[in-house]
Amino acid sequence: MAQVKLVNYDEASREVRAVFDDIMKTRKTDYINNIWRALAVNPPLLKRFWGQMKEVMVKPSKLDPLTKELIYLAVSVNNNCEYCITSHTFAARKHGLDDTMLAEFNEIVALANAGNRLTMGLQVEPDERFKAKHDHKPWSLKKAGGKKKKKK
Amino acid sequence: MAQVKLVNYDEASREVRAVFDDIMKTRKTDYINNIWRALAVNPPLLKRFWGQMKEVMVKPSKLDPLTKELIYLAVSVNNNCEYCITSHTFAARKHGLDDTMLAEFNEIVALANAGNRLTMGLQVEPDERFKAKHDHKPWSLKKAGGKKKKKK
Amino acid sequence: MAQVKLVNYDEASREVRAVFDDIMKTRKTDYINNIWRALAVNPPLLKRFWGQMKEVMVKPSKLDPLTKELIYLAVSVNNNCEYCITSHTFAARKHGLDDTMLAEFNEIVALANAGNRLTMGLQVEPDERFKAKHDHKPWSLKKAGGKKKKKK
Amino acid sequence: MAQVKLVNYDEASREVRAVFDDIMKTRKTDYINNIWRALAVNPPLLKRFWGQMKEVMVKPSKLDPLTKELIYLAVSVNNNCEYCITSHTFAARKHGLDDTMLAEFNEIVALANAGNRLTMGLQVEPDERFKAKHDHKPWSLKKAGGKKKKKK
Amino acid sequence: MAQVKLVNYDEASREVRAVFDDIMKTRKTDYINNIWRALAVNPPLLKRFWGQMKEVMVKPSKLDPLTKELIYLAVSVNNNCEYCITSHTFAARKHGLDDTMLAEFNEIVALANAGNRLTMGLQVEPDERFKAKHDHKPWSLKKAGGKKKKKK
Amino acid sequence: MAQVKLVNYDEASREVRAVFDDIMKTRKTDYINNIWRALAVNPPLLKRFWGQMKEVMVKPSKLDPLTKELIYLAVSVNNNCEYCITSHTFAARKHGLDDTMLAEFNEIVALANAGNRLTMGLQVEPDERFKAKHDHKPWSLKKAGGKKKKKK
Repeated sequence: MAQVKLVNYDEASREVRAVFDDIMKTRKTDYINNIWRALAVNPPLLKRFWGQMKEVMVKPSKLDPLTKELIYLAVSVNNNCEYCITSHTFAARKHGLDDTMLAEFNEIVALANAGNRLTMGLQVEPDERFKAKHDHKPWSLKKAGGKKKKKK
Repeated sequence: MAQVKLVNYDEASREVRAVFDDIMKTRKTDYINNIWRALAVNPPLLKRFWGQMKEVMVKPSKLDPLTKELIYLAVSVNNNCEYCITSHTFAARKHGLDDTMLAEFNEIVALANAGNRLTMGLQVEPDERFKAKHDHKPWSLKKAGGKKKKKK
Repeated sequence: MAQVKLVNYDEASREVRAVFDDIMKTRKTDYINNIWRALAVNPPLLKRFWGQMKEVMVKPSKLDPLTKELIYLAVSVNNNCEYCITSHTFAARKHGLDDTMLAEFNEIVALANAGNRLTMGLQVEPDERFKAKHDHKPWSLKKAGGKKKKKK
Repeated sequence: MAQVKLVNYDEASREVRAVFDDIMKTRKTDYINNIWRALAVNPPLLKRFWGQMKEVMVKPSKLDPLTKELIYLAVSVNNNCEYCITSHTFAARKHGLDDTMLAEFNEIVALANAGNRLTMGLQVEPDERFKAKHDHKPWSLKKAGGKKKKKK
Repeated sequence: MAQVKLVNYDEASREVRAVFDDIMKTRKTDYINNIWRALAVNPPLLKRFWGQMKEVMVKPSKLDPLTKELIYLAVSVNNNCEYCITSHTFAARKHGLDDTMLAEFNEIVALANAGNRLTMGLQVEPDERFKAKHDHKPWSLKKAGGKKKKKK
Repeated sequence: MAQVKLVNYDEASREVRAVFDDIMKTRKTDYINNIWRALAVNPPLLKRFWGQMKEVMVKPSKLDPLTKELIYLAVSVNNNCEYCITSHTFAARKHGLDDTMLAEFNEIVALANAGNRLTMGLQVEPDERFKAKHDHKPWSLKKAGGKKKKKK
């Protein structure tokens, strides 16, 4: 059972209700799931985490919504977070994931874990040609145009 | 340094060369990267792991190649497998991943880890409505048509 | 080597410079460390992650600064993040951690890992008396005073 | 509850039944456990994973069956996979593991986790004398006898 | 359900009772929680693990008791050990942790996980200035005063 | 580089020398490897950890020495502890592990990771018949013979 009380709408402060309202509006639902009700124990945390979730997972970006859900789900499976696997498999299904794809997805997660351990266990070093190559310069406060930024 | 010698083509057995040839043909390259050269110490393992990689990651399937690479990469980042992050970021770039998307990808991995731990730390239980619902029957050997399969 | 170029001040956009300036001002330094220079490849991500770090780790709160660093460090050791262990051990030392305490800290991390695995391996279930006890109610949009909030 | 329906014999396709038959024959049982019934949602995955399990865990090899089960179990405990701990402790008991040995096994897993974290937290580097030493040559397609293999 | 029988006082050997007695005396309670009753299956293990727990967690040291519990808890959350999260959150509450602090604690654990993955995924290398700097000498058996210790 | 200075024999306190001496005697060597030299920064920790290592890994027990090393190594690979993989692969080789067995070992570790994630990702529940079955009684201080132990 959750370590903190799951807050209901009628018990919520104005600050918490504002987040709940935004979640419901953004997700077009009148249901608030357990994690948000738990985070409400600490309203600034609730606001911050929802803010990140909205920016990163909801706002349109270069990666499509299903891919984003699958990346999130891959991490959740790897960490064996039951809550997260349950809720993000549910979310991924809404974006079109069916049973065959779910099995395919999990086989990739499984294979990556296998490949990771083979490589780690045999201590194989990365091939030079695959390493990123950048001409990293040491940190400098110098501004373009040669003027050094004044120290604060 | 790798725990086993990285096999070169001229040292490879016929069995190993067959796999190396198939890797080069499948990937349209004449370069074999370190992991395969290390696995060659145990030819049946080399053959099995390449077989899986080819089936799961190379063969066309419902998930597109970039998504598959990103799922593989998400696991590799989560496990902090340097070899795997290096080689699969390289592979994902070949499928169109640019720096902005790579940063976006890593932010999803980071956010999922954050969300996972908030949920695990507060011991929040999955909402009933998100759980998969199946009418699981106990295992039975009965065949369709009511005939029980003969025991082996 | 980092997957993205480490941005320098003279190459930084106005948006990135604003974050760099805030980091330097907040931390009373004229040095920007590598992670921030890497995140600058995606300015909104840089801004978000610095914002969280500032809110959670810098802003005074109920937990004291050294305790907060040690919690952060415990996670970093557990995940074997070399960069993070290096930089947060450095930070913890600034808050008073000495070699004896660092060894003590790591022994707790080690012991917790040992205890976790003994428990997980033997599949020991939590004692009823230690479980959190709350009278969780199902989610309801009803407002205090009995009026149901209008659906969005 | 499992994300996919657990397939029963009478619902299984010919391809799935062939794997179920081979599992029962190999293990000398008429019971199919839940993981195989779940993987049956994606028959080629079922076939691949069973094929690996049979090759790696069932087929006689240099490591004895109990040792193999304990390696598998050590990973499962480390990943806190409840299903896997349950089924592979069961399997290890069949190969002679008793309660005292199970406790001894878990103490090794616990100690290794403790030792790992002490080393990681203090960032201790491997002793030169323990590192594998090989004269790794760069990849070359040249065949024994000096003839370069023709490019594909 | 636990893999081994949870031992009760009346079934315990003299050796196990001595540890149970010491736990109850040290913790000022007449209750023995499940993990100790499970470890009793292997009395020397029970004695060792309790000995460590007492030395590391109970004995006064430079770090205060709440900080120690939070370090232990951070690891337990990271490993998703349900038993350990339950019992050590309980313990931390006894040392003054309230709901707001628990949420704050978990946000640090979440943020550290996020920061770790951003750094690992982008393969950012530690800044030279944050690395520990020691003049490590190779191992030598030479005793102070120049006399070499005799080989065993 | 290690966070603490690697202690040499001539710098070591009497307490530390006693442990170093015991390590060298037990292992029949005159070399002390880095982890012990690092732990020497906190002599009681050094003594405790060596004590556990000696009890668990060195002392003859029901599991044979190579199996014990492989269990330790499986955890170390899973945690990607470079130091530990290096030193315990070295130790396992001393107990007879060759390259083929090392590859076989790593394939089991890889397969277990794959199997773990398939099971976790699909949220498959343990089969009833594989679960441990014990008639766990609640904790009771009652002594055999019906006399209740006096409370402390």
